[in-house]
Amino acid sequence: MRTLVLGTVALDDVKTPSGVRRNILGGSAVHFAMSARLFSRVNLAAVVGEDFPPGYLDFLRRRRIALTSLIHDRGRTFHWSGEYRGDLNSAVTLKTDLGVLTDFKPEISEEERDIRYVFLANVDPHIQRYLLHRLRSPKLVGLDSMNYWIHHQRPVLLRVLKEVDIYLANDQEARSLSGESNLVKAAGYLHRLGPRMVIIKKGEHGVLFYCSSFIFCLPAYPAARLIDPTGAGDTFAGGLMGYLAKSGRITPSVIRKAIAYATVAASFNVEGFGVERSASLKMGDLEMRLAQLKDLVSLGR
Amino acid sequence: MRTLVLGTVALDDVKTPSGVRRNILGGSAVHFAMSARLFSRVNLAAVVGEDFPPGYLDFLRRRRIALTSLIHDRGRTFHWSGEYRGDLNSAVTLKTDLGVLTDFKPEISEEERDIRYVFLANVDPHIQRYLLHRLRSPKLVGLDSMNYWIHHQRPVLLRVLKEVDIYLANDQEARSLSGESNLVKAAGYLHRLGPRMVIIKKGEHGVLFYCSSFIFCLPAYPAARLIDPTGAGDTFAGGLMGYLAKSGRITPSVIRKAIAYATVAASFNVEGFGVERSASLKMGDLEMRLAQLKDLVSLGR
Repeated sequence: MRTLVLGTVALDDVKTPSGVRRNILGGSAVHFAMSARLFSRVNLAAVVGEDFPPGYLDFLRRRRIALTSLIHDRGRTFHWSGEYRGDLNSAVTLKTDLGVLTDFKPEISEEERDIRYVFLANVDPHIQRYLLHRLRSPKLVGLDSMNYWIHHQRPVLLRVLKEVDIYLANDQEARSLSGESNLVKAAGYLHRLGPRMVIIKKGEHGVLFYCSSFIFCLPAYPAARLIDPTGAGDTFAGGLMGYLAKSGRITPSVIRKAIAYATVAASFNVEGFGVERSASLKMGDLEMRLAQLKDLVSLGR
Repeated sequence: MRTLVLGTVALDDVKTPSGVRRNILGGSAVHFAMSARLFSRVNLAAVVGEDFPPGYLDFLRRRRIALTSLIHDRGRTFHWSGEYRGDLNSAVTLKTDLGVLTDFKPEISEEERDIRYVFLANVDPHIQRYLLHRLRSPKLVGLDSMNYWIHHQRPVLLRVLKEVDIYLANDQEARSLSGESNLVKAAGYLHRLGPRMVIIKKGEHGVLFYCSSFIFCLPAYPAARLIDPTGAGDTFAGGLMGYLAKSGRITPSVIRKAIAYATVAASFNVEGFGVERSASLKMGDLEMRLAQLKDLVSLGR
């Protein structure tokens, strides 16, 4: 099954204790696509500006990402500059240049309106809602957001949350939106907002899945070489949605497996700047780490 | 197999959002014993003062805790007053009255010197070391400490660590002693200090086990009714050491299981003030939650 992702395609400047990179390919839709492509054909709904390097378009096309709905607009591509210090747990945003993102209105083709597995990555919830209503028969819609929208666009975010199936949040966002400090309680609160599945990403501490019939916890893969965490959350989402799209059915055991693939996909992403590592990822790489992750959590017989 | 615990027997004043209790039975050795007793006979090496209620002695004896080496000294029993606020993640110590603990020197019987499973709960590392050297043929020695000793008795703590098998630390202590913020790296550092097994307790995020041949992660049991977290770490240690003593052999699968039992034992402890809940704990209670915990982490087939 195909997967459609609405999100950003960006040029990033990143500084971490491991080094500095300028104008590297980034953005939520790109990071999502790098892992989702291992399971599913990916269609990308995003916008770039006149300064976007044609080489990056080829880079995406070579990885079979469908760019039919990648809008080329007049102006500059969305540009993010950030720095990670110390334990790399959170980025300090140095500069955000929205560029063509300011007036972004996604346009998808008639064929794309029939795609049933859809991820609404972190953009203005008005835009997420607009795209959602363009879909004809979505089967599974995932949504990510960020603290900025939680604080500045809460009403519309709450409206969109009622209409999606999976809400992915990091621990800070989950606490901020729910007002609960305990994450199991926070997940329960978010679940009552509408989405039938809630996934809270806890970074180094792994992930908590919550739905009405079961809870599932999985630790992070213990990454030894943490180079650049940018895009880890979107790589996680790509692995998750891609695997679910491939499976075509949403059962507890499929969900557990999707979260495990998502976890190992994200663990590769952080081992290089931008998509350096995830762009060359093969299924065999995922399978090897999945086996290690299984051993990591095995309670034995 | 018997288990010997060196630690404190205390009278606690505890205040949490759920209420207030005064002069309740507490202390590391007591909390340890409440879970260890489910797997193993427990001998307790500690000290109490003249104000210690005889009813508490009966309470311990009724749970088959051997009090041969519980010293009755002139003076007041160790008294701790603490308060938990907000998410109950950490206690604010309001008052500590060491009392008879000031001059505590453990005395164990000749028979107790042959006990092979020993836990050195959080006391002055000089005292931990003294007891350790009284043992004739320990097979497995676990040790807990706290930030106070890490900062004020680091040299002797490092000496004792070289001689024990399992070091249990919470995340703050692990970071503080290792200087590493990443907990997998911290565990590796602590492992190099001597103990062949390191367990880092991450509270709500569960536990990380580290040894030279494997790493194991287990989330916490998602406790719905968090009343009073006092003693959760010692209850964990009691479940761990008790199960290992009962098994009599230390294999990877025994260790994984011991950590799982320790996790569910601790989850009961926090559901009541002091030992209110853990004192009435039965094996059936543990087994029921163990099954739920297995499901919580199951990756399916």
